[in-house]
Amino acid sequence: MATNTQEAAVTTKFVYAFGAGAAEGNGTQKDLLGGKGANLAEMGRLGMPVPPGFTISTDVCAHYYVNKHSYPNGLREEVEAQLKGIEKKLGRTFGDAKNPLTVSVRSGARASMPGMMDTILNLGLNDKTVEGLAQVSKNPRFAWDCYRRFVAMYGDVVLELKPVDSRERDPFEVILEKKKMAYGVRLDTEMPVEALKELVRDFKAEIRYRTGKIFPDDPIEQLWGAIGAVFGSWMNERAKVYRQLNAIPESWGTAVNVQSMVFGNLGDDCGTGVAFTRDPASGENVFYGEYLIDAQGEDVVAGVRTPQKIATLQKAMPKVYQELLDIRKKLEDHYGDMQDIEFTVEKGTLWMLQTRTGKRTGFAEVRIAVEMVEEKRITPEQAVLRVNPDSLNQLLRPIFDPKAKEEAMAAGRVFAHGLNAGPGAATGRVVFTAHDAFDWAERGEKVLLVREETSPEDIKGMNAAEGILTARGGMTSHAALVARQMGKVCIVGCETLRIDAQQRIMSVPARGETETRVVREGDWVSIDGSTGEVIEGRIATKPSEVLQVLLDGSLDPKKSEVYQRYATLMTWADKARRLKVRANADQPDQATNAVAFGAEGIGLCRTEHMFFGGERITAMREMILADKTEDRERALDKILPMQREDFIGLFRAMGPRPVTIRTLDPPLHEFLPHGEKERESVARQTGVDPRLVARKVAELHEMNPMLGHRGCRLGITFPEITRMQTRAILEAACRVKKEGIDVKPEIMIPLVGHVRELADQAKIVRETAKKVFEAEGVTVDFLLGTMIELPRAAITADEIAREAEFFSFGTNDLTQTTFGLSRDDAGKFLPEYVRREILPSDPFEKLDQGGVGKLMKMAVGLGRETRKDIKLGICGEHGGDPSSVEFCHRLGLDYVSCSPFRIPIARLAAAQAALRK
Amino acid sequence: MATNTQEAAVTTKFVYAFGAGAAEGNGTQKDLLGGKGANLAEMGRLGMPVPPGFTISTDVCAHYYVNKHSYPNGLREEVEAQLKGIEKKLGRTFGDAKNPLTVSVRSGARASMPGMMDTILNLGLNDKTVEGLAQVSKNPRFAWDCYRRFVAMYGDVVLELKPVDSRERDPFEVILEKKKMAYGVRLDTEMPVEALKELVRDFKAEIRYRTGKIFPDDPIEQLWGAIGAVFGSWMNERAKVYRQLNAIPESWGTAVNVQSMVFGNLGDDCGTGVAFTRDPASGENVFYGEYLIDAQGEDVVAGVRTPQKIATLQKAMPKVYQELLDIRKKLEDHYGDMQDIEFTVEKGTLWMLQTRTGKRTGFAEVRIAVEMVEEKRITPEQAVLRVNPDSLNQLLRPIFDPKAKEEAMAAGRVFAHGLNAGPGAATGRVVFTAHDAFDWAERGEKVLLVREETSPEDIKGMNAAEGILTARGGMTSHAALVARQMGKVCIVGCETLRIDAQQRIMSVPARGETETRVVREGDWVSIDGSTGEVIEGRIATKPSEVLQVLLDGSLDPKKSEVYQRYATLMTWADKARRLKVRANADQPDQATNAVAFGAEGIGLCRTEHMFFGGERITAMREMILADKTEDRERALDKILPMQREDFIGLFRAMGPRPVTIRTLDPPLHEFLPHGEKERESVARQTGVDPRLVARKVAELHEMNPMLGHRGCRLGITFPEITRMQTRAILEAACRVKKEGIDVKPEIMIPLVGHVRELADQAKIVRETAKKVFEAEGVTVDFLLGTMIELPRAAITADEIAREAEFFSFGTNDLTQTTFGLSRDDAGKFLPEYVRREILPSDPFEKLDQGGVGKLMKMAVGLGRETRKDIKLGICGEHGGDPSSVEFCHRLGLDYVSCSPFRIPIARLAAAQAALRK
Repeated sequence: MATNTQEAAVTTKFVYAFGAGAAEGNGTQKDLLGGKGANLAEMGRLGMPVPPGFTISTDVCAHYYVNKHSYPNGLREEVEAQLKGIEKKLGRTFGDAKNPLTVSVRSGARASMPGMMDTILNLGLNDKTVEGLAQVSKNPRFAWDCYRRFVAMYGDVVLELKPVDSRERDPFEVILEKKKMAYGVRLDTEMPVEALKELVRDFKAEIRYRTGKIFPDDPIEQLWGAIGAVFGSWMNERAKVYRQLNAIPESWGTAVNVQSMVFGNLGDDCGTGVAFTRDPASGENVFYGEYLIDAQGEDVVAGVRTPQKIATLQKAMPKVYQELLDIRKKLEDHYGDMQDIEFTVEKGTLWMLQTRTGKRTGFAEVRIAVEMVEEKRITPEQAVLRVNPDSLNQLLRPIFDPKAKEEAMAAGRVFAHGLNAGPGAATGRVVFTAHDAFDWAERGEKVLLVREETSPEDIKGMNAAEGILTARGGMTSHAALVARQMGKVCIVGCETLRIDAQQRIMSVPARGETETRVVREGDWVSIDGSTGEVIEGRIATKPSEVLQVLLDGSLDPKKSEVYQRYATLMTWADKARRLKVRANADQPDQATNAVAFGAEGIGLCRTEHMFFGGERITAMREMILADKTEDRERALDKILPMQREDFIGLFRAMGPRPVTIRTLDPPLHEFLPHGEKERESVARQTGVDPRLVARKVAELHEMNPMLGHRGCRLGITFPEITRMQTRAILEAACRVKKEGIDVKPEIMIPLVGHVRELADQAKIVRETAKKVFEAEGVTVDFLLGTMIELPRAAITADEIAREAEFFSFGTNDLTQTTFGLSRDDAGKFLPEYVRREILPSDPFEKLDQGGVGKLMKMAVGLGRETRKDIKLGICGEHGGDPSSVEFCHRLGLDYVSCSPFRIPIARLAAAQAALRK
Repeated sequence: MATNTQEAAVTTKFVYAFGAGAAEGNGTQKDLLGGKGANLAEMGRLGMPVPPGFTISTDVCAHYYVNKHSYPNGLREEVEAQLKGIEKKLGRTFGDAKNPLTVSVRSGARASMPGMMDTILNLGLNDKTVEGLAQVSKNPRFAWDCYRRFVAMYGDVVLELKPVDSRERDPFEVILEKKKMAYGVRLDTEMPVEALKELVRDFKAEIRYRTGKIFPDDPIEQLWGAIGAVFGSWMNERAKVYRQLNAIPESWGTAVNVQSMVFGNLGDDCGTGVAFTRDPASGENVFYGEYLIDAQGEDVVAGVRTPQKIATLQKAMPKVYQELLDIRKKLEDHYGDMQDIEFTVEKGTLWMLQTRTGKRTGFAEVRIAVEMVEEKRITPEQAVLRVNPDSLNQLLRPIFDPKAKEEAMAAGRVFAHGLNAGPGAATGRVVFTAHDAFDWAERGEKVLLVREETSPEDIKGMNAAEGILTARGGMTSHAALVARQMGKVCIVGCETLRIDAQQRIMSVPARGETETRVVREGDWVSIDGSTGEVIEGRIATKPSEVLQVLLDGSLDPKKSEVYQRYATLMTWADKARRLKVRANADQPDQATNAVAFGAEGIGLCRTEHMFFGGERITAMREMILADKTEDRERALDKILPMQREDFIGLFRAMGPRPVTIRTLDPPLHEFLPHGEKERESVARQTGVDPRLVARKVAELHEMNPMLGHRGCRLGITFPEITRMQTRAILEAACRVKKEGIDVKPEIMIPLVGHVRELADQAKIVRETAKKVFEAEGVTVDFLLGTMIELPRAAITADEIAREAEFFSFGTNDLTQTTFGLSRDDAGKFLPEYVRREILPSDPFEKLDQGGVGKLMKMAVGLGRETRKDIKLGICGEHGGDPSSVEFCHRLGLDYVSCSPFRIPIARLAAAQAALRK
C-alpha cells in the first residue's frame, strides 16, 4: 500500500471522465481505473456512445486506507467538476427538480471481485427530483419505482440496514410483501403509484428506526455516501476472504465508477438489448442478440415479455441497428474477440452500457478462435491461449440434443446429482449388474450400468454400457478412473441414491418438498457426465464428429468442419508446447485410441487389470490361496504367457513410443470374492477347501486397504510376482523388438516410501532382465523407476533417485496421504469443504499446489540433485487437468500422462502453459 | 579414505604389541586399533596377564583398499618381528614340531560390527605341529580336535568353501555327521582320535575338490591368508549393509588382532571361567561368576559339565583367586563400570582373555549406577547416561519370578508370540469378552482378556484385567494405546491365534512340528508384555516396589532400596534435562498417576473416551443418529455436564500444570455398534427406528477410516460438537479457577491439513470462550493449537502457525500418512521389513528420523518463522521412546508427552539427550 500512497502523493489527477465518444483514461489502465472503468473509458475512446461518467482512481482508495478513511485534498472539487461536465453533456442537472441527472455508482477493482459492493442505481433521486423524473419520463410509476428501489438499495448498501441474523429476512422485502398484500396485488409491477410512494416513506422510516440514520435527501451527500461505501467494501470480510483465496494483494484497491443513468423505457423510441458479436452457441460469424422496445435492461433477462431477435431491429430502428453493426465490427477489430454487449436506446439515441468478452460453448470457442486466425484478427498462439482446454470435451463426447435436455430440465426430470466423473451425455435402460449390462448390450439394448460402486470384476459390463452411475466413490474411484480411461460417460458418488441390486430397483428418498423417485430395471435414464445430473427418461444424444473421424473412421475428415477446426487448433498447440503428453492405458485398443488422440507414449499401464477375466483370475486366486512359494510360482507360471501376450499387443500398438508399466499394485484381497457363494465357487474352481478361501479372505482383510499390503510391499513379500511380471514385460519387449520395432519399456515400482524398498525390487528386475535377455538372445534398453506417491518418497527423493531412473508422480495417492484423505470416503465432507471455501477446490481434481505441489517441487529438486537427467512425469488423474498441467510445466516435468480421452485437453493445456511462461 | 591413506603414508608403525603386562597401544586408540585391540592393549597397560599378541592397525586396512589389496612396505617384517616377540615371551615357536605356538586371528573395527569375519582359532596347526601340541598337552585327542576345527574354520572363512545355495547344509557338518555314523557315536566328544585324524584329511580333500585350493600347511602362509580374509571381510555385503544402516563410514576400516592361544584344559592346574565384577541380576557389589577345572572356554557355556561358583576358586586356586580379585578391583577402578571378564588358567598361570562392559538387568543397571556414584567412581551425570531408559520398565512393572519363567520356557509352554505392546508380567484366567473380564474380576478372579482386537467399548473390561492379549493390531492399535495408558501388561498382533469368542476358545493351529494348542475360557495363561511371549499356565509374578510406593502407597519408601535408588537417579535426571515431560491421560486417576511419575502436564487428553459408558454413549448415539442440527444439539446438551465434570476432575488433579485437550477425533461410526442385535438395542435405547440405525451405520461406513471423516473434519461438519466441547472445557476451567487453582487449559484441534480448517474451528472456540467467560464471570487464559499429524500440516506449518499457538506432533498418524502405512494392517509385512532390514526399525516404535523426522524439522522451522515463541511438543507414542525423545530434544521441542507409565523413561531419555548434546 505504501508504494501506492507515494504515487498518490505525486499524482495530481484523481478522477477520469469517460463517455459520449471520448475518455480521459483508456483500456490499459486497469491498475488505475479498475477493469470496469478502463473498459468504459476504452469504449469512449473508440468513439462509442457511452453514457457519460467518471472513474475515481484506485489511488484514492489507497489514500483512503492509509489516511484513516479520509480523501486526498482536491478530490471533492474534481468530482464536482466532473459532475458539472456530465450535466453539461446531457443537459440535466444533479438535484434539479425539473430535469434531474441520476447516476449509478459501482465498484471496480483491477480483477473482477465478487464480495465487493453491489451497484447503486438511480442515485440523485429524492422527493423533489422524483417528480422531475416523472415529468421527463411522462411516467410517474416508473419514477417512483426507481425511487423506492434506490432507497432500499442505498439503505442496505450504504446505511447498512441488515437483517439481525441469517434467519431474518431482508426487512425491505418484508415491508414490500406486506404492501402487496395490503393492495391485494401479486406482482411488483401491479403496484399502483400510491403504493410505491408509501414504500419510499416506509423504507425511510425503517432505516431511521433500525439504524438511527436519516436517509439523505441531498444528492451530493448521497453520492459521497455511496463512494465511501465502495471504498469501505474493499475491506469487508467477504472481499478479504476472496482476496486471500485468489492471492489478490490488498494494495491494489478499488476504483469507483459514477455513470449517468439512461432509460430504455420512456416510450416507443426507446429500448434495451443484449447481443453477442457472434453466435455464442455455434460460434458462427453472425450478429446474435435480443431486444425489447420500451423496456429496462432487467426486463430482457426477467422473461416477463418475450424479446425480439436482434435482426428485426433493422426494421424497427434502422439507424440504431446500423450503428450497432458498426460498433460490433469496431469492437471485434479492437478486442480481437467475440464480445457480449448491453445497450439502451433512449428516445432514439443508442447508448452502450457494457462490452465484455462473451461466454460461449466449447464448439463456439474453437470455431471463433480458429476463424479469427483466418480473419487475421489474432495469431495462432492467441487462438491456442483462448480456448479453455476443458471445452474440448464438448467436441470429444456425445452431447445431449440441447433442446431435449432443456425440456427435461424444465419438466423437473432431474432427480439426483453426483460427481461429473466422465463428461458427455448418455441415455440407456438401467441395469444393476455388470453381467446384465453385457447381456443386454449383446442383444442390442442401450444400457446404463448402475452400481453401488464398481470393482475390477465389472469392467466387461462397464465397457458394454453407454454410461455408468454409482452411488459411492469420488472423482478418482474405480468407476471414475476406468470410465475416463474407456471414454465412458460417468457419474459417481451420487450419495442420495438407494440402490437395491437384488430387487433391481433404485430410489431417491423423499427429502423436503421432493417425492420419492423410483427407477426399476429397464427404465430409461439419462446422465450428463459433464454436470453430474441424473435425469429420468430418454434424451436424444448426438455423437462427436471428432471421435467419428479419429476413432471409428465412420466420418470422412474432409466432411467435418468441426474436426478440421479441432485438428488445426491441435497443430498450433503441439507447435507451442514443451511438455510431452502420454496416456494411461492398459489394453492395446486403448493404446490405439491414445495414439489417435496424440499420445506420445504410455505413462501408466496398470497391470492389475491383466489379472482379471476367465483363466487369469482363477490362476491369480490360486496364487493368492497358496501358502508356499512353489505353489505361488506354479500359479504365476500360468499367468505369465497371457500377460506376455498383453504386453506384446501393447508394444505393437505403441511402436517406438515409451511404455511405462507398473508392477502389481492393489492389495490381494481385491482379487478374492466377498460373498459366501462366490467364495464357494472360487473354492471349486481352484480346487481348494472352501474354509481355506474363507480363512484367506479373513486374513487378507484390511482396516485401511489404501494404506495396507499393496504396491511394492507385495513384490517384496512375494518376489515371485515381480519376477513373473518382469519376465512377461521383457520377453514381450524382446519378441516385439525382433519384429523390428524399437520398443521402449519402462518398468515402474509402485508405492515406494524408502529407497531400500526400491533397491529390493530393482535387484529382482535387473537379475530377471539379464536372464531374459540371455534366453531371448536380444537385449532391450529399458528404464527402471518408481512412482512418487507417498510423502516419504517425495522428501527422500534424493535417496530414491540413487535407484530410480525415472519418477512418475502418482498424485492420486500422494494427495490422499498428504492430506490424510481417502478419496473413497471424502465424498461425505469434501463437497462441503469446497462450498465453504475451506479448500479452494477438490484436491483430487485440481492439484493442491500449496501442499502436494510443494512436496512435488521438493522431490524434483532432490531427485535432480542425485541424478541430473532423471526423467520426470505425472500419471495421477491430475495429468489431464489444465491447471495441474500448467503446474507440471512450471515444475519442469518431462511429461504428463492422462486417460486417452483427456489427451487433447492436456496437449492444449501444455501449449498454454508454454505460451504463458 | 584419502585422509587415512595420507596418515598411513607418514605413519611408520603398523603393528602394535600387547600382552603379558604391557602394550604398545592403549584403550583410547580405538580409531587405530579397533575396539577389541584397544581393550586388549589397555588390559596389558594395566599390567594384567593378557596372552601376548599384536594388532595390525586400521591404517593398513585403508592402505589395502586404496592400493589394490596390497600391504604397505615393511608390514611383513613388522608382523614377523612381533611373532618373534611372542615366541620369546612364551617360549613356543610358530610352526615348531615340539612346542608350537598357535594363535587366534580376529577382526576388530572401531565399533562392534556384526557381519565381519568370524574368529579363527588354533592357527599354526598342521600335520607336524599338531603332534607337538599333542605332546605338550599330553592329550592327542585335544590336539586333533583343535586341528580339525581349525581346518574347517579356515576352509570356511579364508578359503571360502561355502554351501552352493541356502538350501544346502554346511559341507563340513555333513562330513562330520557321516563320520559319527561311521564310528557309531552320537556326540562330537565321543569321537576317537582316529576319527578326528580322518576328518582333517577329509576336510582338506573337500576344500581341494570344491574350491580348487590347497589347504596351506605353512603357518606363516596360514597367517597371511587369515589377515587378508579379515581385511576382505570389511567390504563384504553384510558388512556394507550394516555400515549403511548404522552410518559407519567405510573409511574407518578394521584392525586385525593376532593373539597367542592359551589352554585351560591341560590338566588339573588348568581351568577357565567367566565372571562379572558385580552381580548382573541384582547389581549387588559381589564378585560373581563360574569356572571349570581342566576345561576350555566353550565348555562353560555349553553346559555339558556343571561349572562351580567363583567363590570356590579361593580354595581350589588361592593365588589365582586373589589375582582375580585384584583384577576385578583394578578393572572397576579403571573403567568405572561393571565388567564381564573371561579368563583361562594354564598350568597355574592366569590369563585374561577379555574384559567388556557387562550386560545386566534393569535392577542391576540402576543399582550399579547409583552405587558407583556413592563410591565416587562416576559422576551423577555419568550414572544418568549409563542407565538404558527402557530398563526402568523392570522397576515399574510386575515381573515374573525369574525361576518360574525359566522353567516354563524350558518346558516348551510358550505357544505364541505377539508384539510387546505393554511391558510387564501378567498371569490370569482367560476370558473372551470385556464384560466377562469385569464380572470375573469383580468376584476376585485374576483374568487375562483375550480379544480379536479391542474397541473403546472394552475399556472397563481392560481395566479389570491383569493383562490384555489380542490377535490383531500393531504397537499403536487401540489395545496397545489404552494398555500403555493404563499401565496394563499387553501383547497385540499375535497373528497365529485363532479366537472364537462365541465358543469361548482360542487355538494356535499346528504348524510344522508343533501341535495345535487349545485354550478354553478359565484356563490359566501368562503373558510377558516385555518380550511378547504367550505362555500356558500360571507363572508367579512379583509386584513393582516403585509402584507400591508411588501409586498405591502400600510400601513405605524408606523400606524400599529399589525405590530409593530409582528416586535418586530420577532426581539427577531431572536436574540434567531441558525437555519437559507430560502425560497422555484422560481420566483423573490417570492424571494422578502421571503426576506421581513426574508428569509436568497433560500433553494429550483424548476426549473420545469421555463419550463412552452408560448414559454418555446413548446420548452420543442420539447425536449421531440425528439428521438435524437441533436434534444433535439436544443430544450434546446431555453430554455437556458429564464432560464438564470429567474436565473438572482432570484440572483438579493437574493443578497449575498445563492440560492439552483434544477435541473429538475418531470417526463417528466407532460409536455405533456393528452387530444386528446391538443395533436393535441401540434403537430401543435411543428410541429410533432400527432401520434408521442400520442406515446410519451403512452411511457412516468407510473404506479407509484412518483417512476418513474424523478429526477436525467432524467439528467442521458438526460445529455444535466443537462448541459443546469448548464449553465443557472452559466452564470446567472457570469453576476450578474459582477454587483457587491456576488452571492452564490448552485446546487442541486434531487432523488439520489446511490452515483454513484450523481457522474455522478456532473461530468457534474463541466465540464460545467469550460467551463462557461472560457467563462464568471469570476469564481463563488458554492456548489454542493443533496437532501436526498430516504431511500437509507439516509442510504448510508457516500458514498453520498463523492460527495455532502451539503444535503437538501426532507422530502416530504422521507416520501412517508419511509412509502410507496403516498401523492396523502393517503387522502383515512390517515385521518382515524389519527382519530383512528394509526398514531399520518399526517406525511406529522408533521415530523415522530420515522421513517423518524430516517433516517435523520442516514444521518446526516453518512454525517458528511465523510465530517465534510457538510452543512445540509431541504426543504420539514416540514421546515415550528414548531414541525419539533424543531426536525431539535435538529438534528443540518444548516437551514430550507419553503414557503415564513411560514418564520416568522419557525423563531419563530427556536427561541423556541433554547430557549428550
